[in-house]
Amino acid sequence: MPGEDDFELAEVPVAAAADGQLLVRNTWMSVDPSARLRMQQNGSPYLPAFRLGEALEGWAVGEVIESRALGFAVGDRVLHPLGWREYALLDAAGAAGTPPELIPTGDGAPARRYLGALSWVGLTAYVGLFDVAELRPADIVFVSAGAGAVGGLAVQIAKLSGHRVIASAGSGEKVSYILDVLGADAAFCYRDGPAIELLRDCAPEGIDVYFDNVGGEQLEAALDVMRPRGRVALCGAISAYNGEHRVPGPGNLFNAVTMGLTLRGFLARMYAHRMPAFRDQMRSWVEDGRIVYAEQCYSGLEQAPRALMDLFAGRNVGKVLVQIADDPEEG
Amino acid sequence: MPGEDDFELAEVPVAAAADGQLLVRNTWMSVDPSARLRMQQNGSPYLPAFRLGEALEGWAVGEVIESRALGFAVGDRVLHPLGWREYALLDAAGAAGTPPELIPTGDGAPARRYLGALSWVGLTAYVGLFDVAELRPADIVFVSAGAGAVGGLAVQIAKLSGHRVIASAGSGEKVSYILDVLGADAAFCYRDGPAIELLRDCAPEGIDVYFDNVGGEQLEAALDVMRPRGRVALCGAISAYNGEHRVPGPGNLFNAVTMGLTLRGFLARMYAHRMPAFRDQMRSWVEDGRIVYAEQCYSGLEQAPRALMDLFAGRNVGKVLVQIADDPEEG
Repeated sequence: MPGEDDFELAEVPVAAAADGQLLVRNTWMSVDPSARLRMQQNGSPYLPAFRLGEALEGWAVGEVIESRALGFAVGDRVLHPLGWREYALLDAAGAAGTPPELIPTGDGAPARRYLGALSWVGLTAYVGLFDVAELRPADIVFVSAGAGAVGGLAVQIAKLSGHRVIASAGSGEKVSYILDVLGADAAFCYRDGPAIELLRDCAPEGIDVYFDNVGGEQLEAALDVMRPRGRVALCGAISAYNGEHRVPGPGNLFNAVTMGLTLRGFLARMYAHRMPAFRDQMRSWVEDGRIVYAEQCYSGLEQAPRALMDLFAGRNVGKVLVQIADDPEEG
Repeated sequence: MPGEDDFELAEVPVAAAADGQLLVRNTWMSVDPSARLRMQQNGSPYLPAFRLGEALEGWAVGEVIESRALGFAVGDRVLHPLGWREYALLDAAGAAGTPPELIPTGDGAPARRYLGALSWVGLTAYVGLFDVAELRPADIVFVSAGAGAVGGLAVQIAKLSGHRVIASAGSGEKVSYILDVLGADAAFCYRDGPAIELLRDCAPEGIDVYFDNVGGEQLEAALDVMRPRGRVALCGAISAYNGEHRVPGPGNLFNAVTMGLTLRGFLARMYAHRMPAFRDQMRSWVEDGRIVYAEQCYSGLEQAPRALMDLFAGRNVGKVLVQIADDPEEG
């Protein structure tokens, strides 16, 4: 587990925008579990490792203060992957990754919403259910880390789609939030006993879909109560992110053979093509007031390491955001 | 691991066929790894547990000696699920499971072929590749237990479909058989070192599909060399069938998230609807002499327990069969 000492707040000169580039003053950034994964030495094609001595990366929104790129003007709001810094120099064509995206004006949503419900976090919940787990009518759905950013949206999307939803979290307060605010049908605190017993109590008839944000004991429990042809969307395994060694997988993976189960891992960026369909659906839910979106906000870039550590300690409800600069929208 | 003492050869009276039933004199039966699974106390909907004091079950072929069912005449050859006995009393409509199936005459294949290449074993290899692992052009395929009944067919079907194929087995002899007879591109003996090193040597460019017959260390190795969007068909985990306790799953299941991998378990009976398409394809390969089909035959029902134990000890190449009675075809 990284500590505050592993981070350094450094001042470096920022170059002016060259042809095809824009300079953005970041207002908000997102703190995601995947940042921890990118601190490992060997990344994956989808999650390249951070480099020591260079700024971290993560989703951010900000205001264009200089543009030499077609389609972007000073004052535009953009969503881009270069958070963890005050100023971001971006290639408009995305030479170094996902290109920056103009945030529409006039839809009433503050820019920081594009770090949450309307962006990759929301897309993760949406494609995890519909594309990865291939949600079908009458499926019973279990979501772990149901009070988290992704889990909280997965619970709500599954409920809005007419499913029975069970969720878990790490405190009684979070369980109340899941039941009373997010509207899950049943929920448990995983610290209250063996996951298999808690889950069986909440899902006596079994489950068809498991949206897995944690791995470990809850994944094994889910594989024990899965009904035939059940599906697991492997979204994260936060229980194992900080270990130095490999953590054994579920001891009942063989249930997949006898019950015809599917486990499929994913990152939202593998389903980028689904963003337009997702945004259409989510905007209409947001406009109708049918989506609750909790945010836990920290103020100042220097708070970002603590925000990440709080996330891993489970001290968050909903999306963890850091405000980097005054936001003109909220001024 | 069961021993010979756990089996009893019992003589019981066989009832005459009632309305809708047929009595079959079994000639050959199949010995499958799944028999071991059905010796556990709690079965699954797809693999019900055997009951103590009753005959085991397993695929068999035989000759109808009495029929009170439409569509079956004395002398017909049938494939059915009631092996592990000399005479089987079957419900033609399949009241107690899969209904008996007439074996066509005149296609030149001996009836026992319907216990192997042309039946459930072949279907397992076929749907494991095409339906479960969703084999795509240019995929590199790895098959464990490649000298076994299912694995040997999976190797050949993948080769006939134009893929690069790597396979593993438990002896140098089997590796030679896989390379020289079955035509795999590369093969290794898993006893020669860490699976990950042996597999990396055989598949320096990685793999896209893993047809998993064994679980354990080879599954973990496969998850380490999978390319993005790779797929695992979980067909069996023979390495864990005889343990009393749960065996930890792969310690790198999280690769599924970062690489977008899918693991899907299956039993052939979940894909029974694919039998006609499979049989058409396999018959044409068999007729063209393009399928090698090894059988390891035991003589006499009393040899069946030993055949099962040899299977679990890896002392088999190809399909394990027990001849229960003289076969008129081979007389």
